[in-house]
Amino acid sequence: MTERLFRDELRVVNVGLDVFADSIDASGGAVQRTDWQPPAGGDKQIGAALASLVNLPDVKQANARAFAAYLDAQPVLEGIGTARDDIPGMGERMILHAGPPVAWERMCGPMQGAVTGAILLEGWAEDPEGARALAAGGGFVFEPNHHHACVGPMAGVTSPSMPVWIVRDSEHGHTTYCNLNEGLGKVLRMGAYDPAVLERLRWMERVLAPTLKTALEKREELPLKPLMAQALHMGDEVHNRNVAASSLLLRALLPALLKTGAPQARIAETVRFITGNDHFFLNLSMAACKAMLDAAHGVPGSSMVTAMARNGVEFGIRVSGTGDAWFTTPAPRVQGLFFTGYSVDDAAPDLGDSAITETAGIGGFAMAASPAIVKFVGGSAADALGATAEMRHITLGSNPAWTLPVLDFQGTPAGIDVRKCVDTGIAPVINTGIAHREAGIGQIGAGVTRAPLACMEQAITALARQLREDGRLTTRQGVLS
Amino acid sequence: MTERLFRDELRVVNVGLDVFADSIDASGGAVQRTDWQPPAGGDKQIGAALASLVNLPDVKQANARAFAAYLDAQPVLEGIGTARDDIPGMGERMILHAGPPVAWERMCGPMQGAVTGAILLEGWAEDPEGARALAAGGGFVFEPNHHHACVGPMAGVTSPSMPVWIVRDSEHGHTTYCNLNEGLGKVLRMGAYDPAVLERLRWMERVLAPTLKTALEKREELPLKPLMAQALHMGDEVHNRNVAASSLLLRALLPALLKTGAPQARIAETVRFITGNDHFFLNLSMAACKAMLDAAHGVPGSSMVTAMARNGVEFGIRVSGTGDAWFTTPAPRVQGLFFTGYSVDDAAPDLGDSAITETAGIGGFAMAASPAIVKFVGGSAADALGATAEMRHITLGSNPAWTLPVLDFQGTPAGIDVRKCVDTGIAPVINTGIAHREAGIGQIGAGVTRAPLACMEQAITALARQLREDGRLTTRQGVLS
Repeated sequence: MTERLFRDELRVVNVGLDVFADSIDASGGAVQRTDWQPPAGGDKQIGAALASLVNLPDVKQANARAFAAYLDAQPVLEGIGTARDDIPGMGERMILHAGPPVAWERMCGPMQGAVTGAILLEGWAEDPEGARALAAGGGFVFEPNHHHACVGPMAGVTSPSMPVWIVRDSEHGHTTYCNLNEGLGKVLRMGAYDPAVLERLRWMERVLAPTLKTALEKREELPLKPLMAQALHMGDEVHNRNVAASSLLLRALLPALLKTGAPQARIAETVRFITGNDHFFLNLSMAACKAMLDAAHGVPGSSMVTAMARNGVEFGIRVSGTGDAWFTTPAPRVQGLFFTGYSVDDAAPDLGDSAITETAGIGGFAMAASPAIVKFVGGSAADALGATAEMRHITLGSNPAWTLPVLDFQGTPAGIDVRKCVDTGIAPVINTGIAHREAGIGQIGAGVTRAPLACMEQAITALARQLREDGRLTTRQGVLS
Repeated sequence: MTERLFRDELRVVNVGLDVFADSIDASGGAVQRTDWQPPAGGDKQIGAALASLVNLPDVKQANARAFAAYLDAQPVLEGIGTARDDIPGMGERMILHAGPPVAWERMCGPMQGAVTGAILLEGWAEDPEGARALAAGGGFVFEPNHHHACVGPMAGVTSPSMPVWIVRDSEHGHTTYCNLNEGLGKVLRMGAYDPAVLERLRWMERVLAPTLKTALEKREELPLKPLMAQALHMGDEVHNRNVAASSLLLRALLPALLKTGAPQARIAETVRFITGNDHFFLNLSMAACKAMLDAAHGVPGSSMVTAMARNGVEFGIRVSGTGDAWFTTPAPRVQGLFFTGYSVDDAAPDLGDSAITETAGIGGFAMAASPAIVKFVGGSAADALGATAEMRHITLGSNPAWTLPVLDFQGTPAGIDVRKCVDTGIAPVINTGIAHREAGIGQIGAGVTRAPLACMEQAITALARQLREDGRLTTRQGVLS
C-alpha cells in the first residue's frame, strides 16, 4: 500500500485547512479542495452540544413526533375576520410586527414606515410626524405576530382594524392568521404610507374583505395544502411566486363569490384586484405554513425549526423543543435583483415573517418547482434545482403532499433540523422581497438569502442545556460547562 | 498509427449493421452500438430527393421566409361566432372533421360516433340509427377542418350550429376557427353522443357561447401568444395540459364577463363550466397555432411542416412548399396510460387536429415546460426534458416568444423540417388523448406518440419533384427518375 502511494501519481482530496492543499499544489501534486469547515467554526461548546445531540434517541423520537404533526396538519381557509376581533391576545392599542421582538426605536426604516401608516390608518394620529411621536412616546404595545398565532410578510404590521385570513388546522384544531396582500411596489408592508397606500388599505377593509368573507361563508372550508400542491406543479414556489396559487384561489372562490348577491360592480372590483395581484395568495400561504409548523411546535427535545422570521434588524428562529425562545442574530442584507436605480446600498436588511414558507418546505426549498422564479430573484435553472437538492441535507424528511414534477415527484425537503444545519454548515435558503432601508419608499428588489447559522448554533446549545436540565442528557453523552 | 491500433485495447463505435458489432463482441472487444440507420431505410429515391434538397439555397431561403412568418404571427382572440356564419366555405349540410379527407364509410368508430352526435344535435335525424343511415346515404358533405381554416381536437367534428372561437393573426390578417371544449370523458369529440353529451353541447350553444361572446365584445382583443407563454411558465405544454392557460383565460375574461350585464346566475354557470374544465383552453391553443402556421403556409420551396393531423385512419401532414397536398400513411395506435379497465386493444388509432400544437412548437415539443404532464401521458421528468431536446434536431429554429424556464429560458423548438426528420430518422413527438375505438364510449386514456416518418418521406419526394418541375432543381443537384 505504502509502496503504491509513492509509485503512483499523487491525487489528494484536501478537507479543512488550505495550507495542506497549497503545499501539494506547490510540489506539483493533484489536489481537490473541499469547502468543508468544522461545525460552528470549531467552537468547542457548540461542537460539544452538537455531539451530544446528534445521535440522542430522545431527540430522534421528538423530531419524529414533531415532523409527523407537521405532515398531518391540514390547514383550511376558514374565513376572514379582523385583527381586533379574531387574533388571540390582540389589544386595542397593540401593533403586531414581523420577526422577533423589537422596540420602536430599534425598528428598521420600512418597519417604522409601516407602523406610521398603521397609526394613520387607525386614525390614532393626523400626520406622519404625529404618528412617529406617539410611537416613540410609548403610545403602543409592539409585539411579534408570532406571539399571536399570526404572520405577516415584510414589515408584517398588523393593527386592530385590519382584515385577516383565518386558517384552521383541521387535524389539530388550532388557528392562524395573516393580513391580506396589497400587491407589489408602494405598499405598507414595504414601509410606504402615502395616501394611495392608505386608501388601498381602506378599500380592502371596506370592499375586498367583506366580499370575500361573504363568499367564504357560502362555501365549504377550502383545504390549502392541495391547492398549494397544484401551484407547485404550476411553477410557483408559493413564496415569491404565487401567480398560479392566486389564480387557483380565485377559481376556487368564484362560484361562491357569484352567489353572494353582492352588487356586480363590487364583485368586479374584487375580482379585478385579485387578478391584478399575482402575490395575492402569499399571505394565505404563510398562514397555512404557520398552521402546519405550529402543529409541530413544543415537542420537548425536538431540534426541528418551527419559525424563521426577521424584523429588519435581527433574524430569529424558534425551535420545537425550546418553546417560545427566540435565537437571534443581526439580519443579513439580501443580495438580489434590484429595480432600476436601486442597489444593495439602498436595501433594508432581511425582513418579514414570510420565511415561514421555507420553514415549511416551500419557497427557496421548492425552487425546483419554479425555475421561472430566477427572473425575479436571480440565478439559473440549475441553481433552482441545486437549492432544493442542498436543502435535503438539513431537513428531517420530505413532504409527500407537496411534490416536485421535475424531480420525478419527490416531495419538498421539509423540517429543518438545527443539528444538521450546524453539522453540515448548510444554511436554509430563503427567497425574499427587498424593501428600501428608509421609511415611505417601498419595494426595491427581490433575491435569495440564507438564514444565519448563528441562530442554529444558539438553538443547539439551548436545546442541549435544556435536555441536560431535564435529565435526558447525561454528562457522558454531552460535555457542557 | 496502425501499430497503435494493434497494441492498444480495441474500442469501436459501430454505426449501422449490427453484424459488425456482433463480431467484435464475440472476440472480446469493446463496442459501442449506435442506433443509426440510413435515411428512409435506405430507399434510393427518397435518399436522392433528400440529397438534392439538403443544401439547396432555394429551400433554405424559403424556410427562412416561412419560419419568419410563423414567428411574426400574432394570434389574437377576436370573438365567438358560429360555424355556419363564420367558417369560410361552410355549407348548410356540411360536417367538418379532423385530419386529412376521409369518407363516412372509412371513418373510425369515434369519428362516426361524433358525426352521429352532430347529426342529432342539428336535428337532422331523430335517433342514432337514422343519423347513420343519412350519413351512409350521402346526405352530407364531409370535409377536413383544415380545408376551412379550422381545427378540432380528436374527432374534430364541426357542424353548422356549433359555436366557434374566432382567432385572427393581427400581423397577417387571416382568421382561424375551432369549436369550444366540452371537458373530459364522455364527450362528442371522443365519439360519445348520449343525451347528456348533446345536452351539454346545447347548453354551450345557448349559454356559454353567447355569454363569452358578449364579454369578448366588452374588451380588447386578447393576444394569445403571451398568454400561452405564461402558461408554459406554469407547467402547461398547452396541448394536453391546459390547467394554467384555462385559468389565465378566465382571469383575462372575468372583468369583461362581470360587465356584460348578464344575469349573475348565467355568469356563475359559465364560470363554473370553465373552472371545472382544465382543458378549456385547448381549442383556443389549437386555433392560435393554426393561425401561426397558416402564416407560414404556401411558401414555394419550403420544407417546413404546417399541419400534422389525424382522422383516426390516416395520419397526414401538409408542408409549406407543397400547398394543399396531404401526405398520408396509416395512423398509429397510441401507447399510453389507460383509464382503469381499458388497454391499447380498446384504443382507436391516433386521432385529431390537435397535433397542430406540436407543429407550432408546443405540446410534445415543449414537454420540458411541463414535467407534471407525465402523470397524464406517461414517462419520467427526464423523458420530458429529452423530448424537447430531441426535437431541436428536426426543427428550423426556436420560438423566443415561448421560453422554457427549466432550460434557462431557451425558446421552444419549432418549425419542423421534413428534410431533418428524414435525414435524422427522428419523428416529431405528439402528446395526445386516446379515444375508444367504438363509437359512443369516449376517452379511455392519453399518451405520447410519434408522427410517422412515411409522411415526411412522401413530402420530400413531392417537394423535390415540384422544385425540379419549377426549374429550381437541376438534374445535377438531384437525381429523380
